[in-house]
Amino acid sequence: MENDRMKQGLDKLMEYTLSTNDDISTHLKISDDLEEIAPDVGKYIIEFAYGDIYSREGLTNQQRALITLSSLITQGTEPQLELHINTALTSGLTPKELVEAIMQLIPYTGFPRVLNALTLAKKVFNQRELEVKEAASN
Amino acid sequence: MENDRMKQGLDKLMEYTLSTNDDISTHLKISDDLEEIAPDVGKYIIEFAYGDIYSREGLTNQQRALITLSSLITQGTEPQLELHINTALTSGLTPKELVEAIMQLIPYTGFPRVLNALTLAKKVFNQRELEVKEAASN
Amino acid sequence: MENDRMKQGLDKLMEYTLSTNDDISTHLKISDDLEEIAPDVGKYIIEFAYGDIYSREGLTNQQRALITLSSLITQGTEPQLELHINTALTSGLTPKELVEAIMQLIPYTGFPRVLNALTLAKKVFNQRELEVKEAASN
Amino acid sequence: MENDRMKQGLDKLMEYTLSTNDDISTHLKISDDLEEIAPDVGKYIIEFAYGDIYSREGLTNQQRALITLSSLITQGTEPQLELHINTALTSGLTPKELVEAIMQLIPYTGFPRVLNALTLAKKVFNQRELEVKEAASN
Amino acid sequence: MENDRMKQGLDKLMEYTLSTNDDISTHLKISDDLEEIAPDVGKYIIEFAYGDIYSREGLTNQQRALITLSSLITQGTEPQLELHINTALTSGLTPKELVEAIMQLIPYTGFPRVLNALTLAKKVFNQRELEVKEAASN
Amino acid sequence: MENDRMKQGLDKLMEYTLSTNDDISTHLKISDDLEEIAPDVGKYIIEFAYGDIYSREGLTNQQRALITLSSLITQGTEPQLELHINTALTSGLTPKELVEAIMQLIPYTGFPRVLNALTLAKKVFNQRELEVKEAASN
Repeated sequence: MENDRMKQGLDKLMEYTLSTNDDISTHLKISDDLEEIAPDVGKYIIEFAYGDIYSREGLTNQQRALITLSSLITQGTEPQLELHINTALTSGLTPKELVEAIMQLIPYTGFPRVLNALTLAKKVFNQRELEVKEAASN
Repeated sequence: MENDRMKQGLDKLMEYTLSTNDDISTHLKISDDLEEIAPDVGKYIIEFAYGDIYSREGLTNQQRALITLSSLITQGTEPQLELHINTALTSGLTPKELVEAIMQLIPYTGFPRVLNALTLAKKVFNQRELEVKEAASN
Repeated sequence: MENDRMKQGLDKLMEYTLSTNDDISTHLKISDDLEEIAPDVGKYIIEFAYGDIYSREGLTNQQRALITLSSLITQGTEPQLELHINTALTSGLTPKELVEAIMQLIPYTGFPRVLNALTLAKKVFNQRELEVKEAASN
Repeated sequence: MENDRMKQGLDKLMEYTLSTNDDISTHLKISDDLEEIAPDVGKYIIEFAYGDIYSREGLTNQQRALITLSSLITQGTEPQLELHINTALTSGLTPKELVEAIMQLIPYTGFPRVLNALTLAKKVFNQRELEVKEAASN
Repeated sequence: MENDRMKQGLDKLMEYTLSTNDDISTHLKISDDLEEIAPDVGKYIIEFAYGDIYSREGLTNQQRALITLSSLITQGTEPQLELHINTALTSGLTPKELVEAIMQLIPYTGFPRVLNALTLAKKVFNQRELEVKEAASN
Repeated sequence: MENDRMKQGLDKLMEYTLSTNDDISTHLKISDDLEEIAPDVGKYIIEFAYGDIYSREGLTNQQRALITLSSLITQGTEPQLELHINTALTSGLTPKELVEAIMQLIPYTGFPRVLNALTLAKKVFNQRELEVKEAASN
């Protein structure tokens, strides 16, 4: 049954990861780092976070990506925020939706966390060669 | 033009507030409290938070409610969290979607914040006489 | 194999819980609350938190209790902090050790979080009829 | 020389405490709570916080009160925030200045922390029978 | 009336910004970053933060700078903290007052946040070629 | 008596610091930074943090190191976290115990803070040429 959780987690993780893009290599790099000193953490991320939680019914991948982003922006935890701007885009959210999601947090976290998130978003948009201008067209 | 922001903010706030329910009285109670010592804060909430930010295009009310909830759970800021569990329900999110949204945060905030949010969610579901059992059926 | 994680988690949870004391009822009360709206969260706490993490080798129960307490004090997440003051005592830490652990955080969190934790510790010591005076004898 | 730190701390603490008001009893109540399980924490608050830090030159009592309030609002650490709304008033800040100070944090913490602080401020103003209405007249 | 808020915000922002110093370019750089993906955020900072909030009566620019600094140090939000060490100096606070303000937070945030703030303060003092030694002379 | 606190603090600090390792130079570097603009902060760290708090009876150096690490991971305050991964190792905790301590926080802070701490731990293990592989062998 454990094998099922691992398989389910990997399948779900794939849905958030571009095979042609460097965010998969970011995921793998994190795995490499962990492999040496704490291999079980990577296992827990796949089995528990992606296999148990992300794989639940009731919310779309895009909804889960928005919830995750909002929490990471509120905490200010980089570089995980950068990683999940990537997974949010891969889940199908548009750059414009991401920018709006970040701006929605101004009344709840204040400007500093929002400015830091926008800086990271711009960096990711550039890496993925997204039309960033389009993101701003409200 | 200021009047426009106030009007737009009030209109938007209405979309998140049940007229037949006590969450509108909760909103009004907050206004009462503020009226005495800081009346402009209520004005800023309506004009800036609801008039400027919530009224922007690009995300649905339900998406904005999810983002807001996620930030408040992450911060642990009660009683605002209770208020926005109400606005999330009024925006059309189901009890089940709310519970799933809260659970999505386990890998990002740990269990304690999630448990506190679930306790509040249960309280609000009871107040609104929602079929809570149904919320759990995954 | 899932059944193993559940069993391992329950066994480990027992080691942190007094059968003759009301902290087990606190645990059960939390379970009751969750049962209605989010039954799987209780399952994740037992299988993942206690079954996977707490059951790992390499640290004693008392070390894990200290680490947990320190994080909860730093976050200020009540009522989970109260619960884990109980589990820390059941793991074998003395009241005096707990008070010292809380005081060790003054240079890292400042006084407010520490004062709140001491207030909760005193409440738990009283509930368990521990010789609180003894706790203070440095 | 230690005695000097204790004396200096007590003298400084007096400047922030009304003898005719219940905020001194709040201070004493905290001391009572601590006395039993962690008497040295009260000593550290007086010797280190008030004796070493608050007693330094270079800032007025009112400036130190503003800095302290801002940090406690940002952290959301009650009941210490309530205590320091009292010490801020005793240091000579007016209710209006306090309300403005709290509102200055909207762009940096968002509305939730600010609303919680205003609720506490109103409670303290009422306890001290301050003309709260006057506080709002911008 | 919107134009008034923009004008008032810009006027107020000028009071916190040295025209001969690179902190204005820092402000502009942030604007450049935002211009591409979220131009309205810059507008909100000027209209809401500086036009509505900073422009209120009842506190001096220096008091508002102290409150802002204290919140940013408590949150640990760089690089905004660096920016506001600059605006605090431009508002007329001396390097010595800034250092004292940072030290006042030791009892409320612990040493780590304070040490990080002091490192940034030293960097800014060097950039502005301020007599840092003088700042330390208590 | 003050001299006693300084001496006691320095003695205690030595117990957490390798003379043959670069973490002592890290400690000294911090002192250098502070010396110029806030010399008393270094004094407070030694006299208050190490002289008063760390020197108390009732917990071992290793217990205090675990408590400190847990708080810094929860706060995400780098570079102090890196420094205290070093002091934890010097106090006698093994790399494996450190990794386990970090992993114990997954249920209480979520994965992002834990991943950042593991990245720093790996960096420190490499600097101290510790057998990192061994750390992972659960």
